[in-house]
Amino acid sequence: MSVTAAKGFTAAGVAAGIKESGTPDLALVVNQGPNLAAAGVFTSNRVKAAPVLWSEQVLKGGQVCAVVLNSGGANACTGPLGFQDTHATAEKAADALGHSAGEIAVASTGLIGLRLPMDKLLPGIDKAVAELSPHGGEKAAIAIKTTDTVHKTAVAARDGWTVGGMAKGAGMLAPGLATMLVVLTTDADVDAAGLDATLRAATRTTFDRVDSDGCMSTNDTVLLLASGASGITPPQQEFADAVHAVCDDLARQLIGDAEGASKDIRIEVVNAASEDDAVEVGRSIARNNLLKCAIHGEDPNWGRVLSAIGTTSAVFEPDQLNVAINGVWVCKSGSVGEDRDLVDMRFREVRVTADLAAGSHSAVIWSNDLTADYVRENSAYSS
Amino acid sequence: MSVTAAKGFTAAGVAAGIKESGTPDLALVVNQGPNLAAAGVFTSNRVKAAPVLWSEQVLKGGQVCAVVLNSGGANACTGPLGFQDTHATAEKAADALGHSAGEIAVASTGLIGLRLPMDKLLPGIDKAVAELSPHGGEKAAIAIKTTDTVHKTAVAARDGWTVGGMAKGAGMLAPGLATMLVVLTTDADVDAAGLDATLRAATRTTFDRVDSDGCMSTNDTVLLLASGASGITPPQQEFADAVHAVCDDLARQLIGDAEGASKDIRIEVVNAASEDDAVEVGRSIARNNLLKCAIHGEDPNWGRVLSAIGTTSAVFEPDQLNVAINGVWVCKSGSVGEDRDLVDMRFREVRVTADLAAGSHSAVIWSNDLTADYVRENSAYSS
Repeated sequence: MSVTAAKGFTAAGVAAGIKESGTPDLALVVNQGPNLAAAGVFTSNRVKAAPVLWSEQVLKGGQVCAVVLNSGGANACTGPLGFQDTHATAEKAADALGHSAGEIAVASTGLIGLRLPMDKLLPGIDKAVAELSPHGGEKAAIAIKTTDTVHKTAVAARDGWTVGGMAKGAGMLAPGLATMLVVLTTDADVDAAGLDATLRAATRTTFDRVDSDGCMSTNDTVLLLASGASGITPPQQEFADAVHAVCDDLARQLIGDAEGASKDIRIEVVNAASEDDAVEVGRSIARNNLLKCAIHGEDPNWGRVLSAIGTTSAVFEPDQLNVAINGVWVCKSGSVGEDRDLVDMRFREVRVTADLAAGSHSAVIWSNDLTADYVRENSAYSS
Repeated sequence: MSVTAAKGFTAAGVAAGIKESGTPDLALVVNQGPNLAAAGVFTSNRVKAAPVLWSEQVLKGGQVCAVVLNSGGANACTGPLGFQDTHATAEKAADALGHSAGEIAVASTGLIGLRLPMDKLLPGIDKAVAELSPHGGEKAAIAIKTTDTVHKTAVAARDGWTVGGMAKGAGMLAPGLATMLVVLTTDADVDAAGLDATLRAATRTTFDRVDSDGCMSTNDTVLLLASGASGITPPQQEFADAVHAVCDDLARQLIGDAEGASKDIRIEVVNAASEDDAVEVGRSIARNNLLKCAIHGEDPNWGRVLSAIGTTSAVFEPDQLNVAINGVWVCKSGSVGEDRDLVDMRFREVRVTADLAAGSHSAVIWSNDLTADYVRENSAYSS
């Protein structure tokens, strides 16, 4: 399953010794063809990790034969020597696979500001190449975990062709909690331009609308590789739907495993004047620490939703705002609505609906509560 | 001291029964003249509490004879009836003091979305009027506390004239944690236009650069009242310096008492291309939950500083950024700098210096760490 659900892909996940714990830390995904078409989207953080700078260049060619991914170190803010390390990683994989380094993408995740132990990483690539298998998808997904408690995979099987993928991270795309790495594969026969358009459309409404803690990573990477091994070129909309379904599934899994979270918060902004307004309001609500604490405490504190909406530039009138929590309209016309005691917040998923009464557009943003466990997990030295 | 340090002011703080705890919850500050000049700045949140909407109108006249302040309820998101409550509060104080309601400012703090108990608040005004005293400043400062652990006052005494003030809140001006209410008084003879210019300049670099948790209040209010009772019109710069000193002192006290905080973080951005760039970068660092957790854990995690800088639109080159924590340059030229083990973070104040290497402007933003205590305090039902 995972990245090897689609025909034409092999993968492996091994323990190279990058992590002191000795758990798996190096994954390799190889496109066996016949096509090598690929697309990628990367963090919009202006401080980009070396593997992001490298892979952005690789993807400009529209061809990727393999992806090397490591956990145990982000290789971000490591200067020119860190970039040389990424280059050496691609060269090593190229040698082992008999390909050009210019078609090998690299992705890293872990602590910022530390060089990778290349004496362990490079031999790990040989080990991974030796273990490449059309059943290696699960092992690859396990090897890219950092603070993830479970590995994340998803598959959309269609009539003769398939889209599969793996993800790590408790985070997001535009803003990233920890590093989010995603590799999607398909055996559909789609060219690089088609992959690029499909991937951008899918990520815009999935990974890009996950906002767990508002912190943008230096390493976020989402790649889509197409082998064409099915021999089928699906109708464009069917392919887009399948890629979207896998992205949506993985994005939901990321939120469900966010660091320290006890609640998954689905924020739906409706009746906005534009989609941009809906997204801006949704993000503002998602990033309001006071609301995130209230939801942790199962307190339907709609005043904090209104104060978050009030900081945005979206079109609305304060006295026309309505807010529902788990379906109870606790705020109507900007003031007290239905009885807040009617709100049942015992379950992990909490739904916040903000009605801007300003138009017909909407958007959904996913977030998490803010917990003492989040603080503990991120206060530990060098976590 | 406090708001009664300057000549021409009386004040009182009483328990009106708004808070169920029975602690003081109503403050009254009266300008006895001869002048009634006043200026105010208010939250920039578009969802504004009734007392903010009221007081903004009052201040347009440039005259304030009294300020009624209550804790125990924010009177925000309470609709037209909530606005009537504020109006009734001003009318009641006007009757009791023999003034016009149009010169009485009102400020409220507490939970959003609940009507105030007017049957308790209005009699409380009579009680406060009866207790008005030129020594009532401390009691007034105590009566406006909510989650504050201490009351906050400051005084700048100059040659024959004085500026004094009180503040409540663990928050900020542009963005507000809980409601921040500040009343400043002076016996200097300064007109409303002079007060307005002075107050805006002072708040811009004090309260407005406090960013404890990025959450903007619906109720933030800062008022400056001038009685002229000293008969002295100070040189403009001297007056500005005194107002700035009192604002700076109170702002520092707010940070020092922020909800759940164990560290006060002084973020200085230097060598920025513009002051706006410096402020944008400072705020981005101040709002980075991952960094705030790291500082709580006494971890000099400079990678999180760089990832926060990378989300801004400020002028900088990633490979020219330098970051110091408590004076140790742990990041140089965007990469590993001095040994992080040299950083001593045992003390409450932590200094983060971000050098953008892009110009000659700078700014200081004050923030706090993110702690399990903050989560607990803000997870409690209806806190």
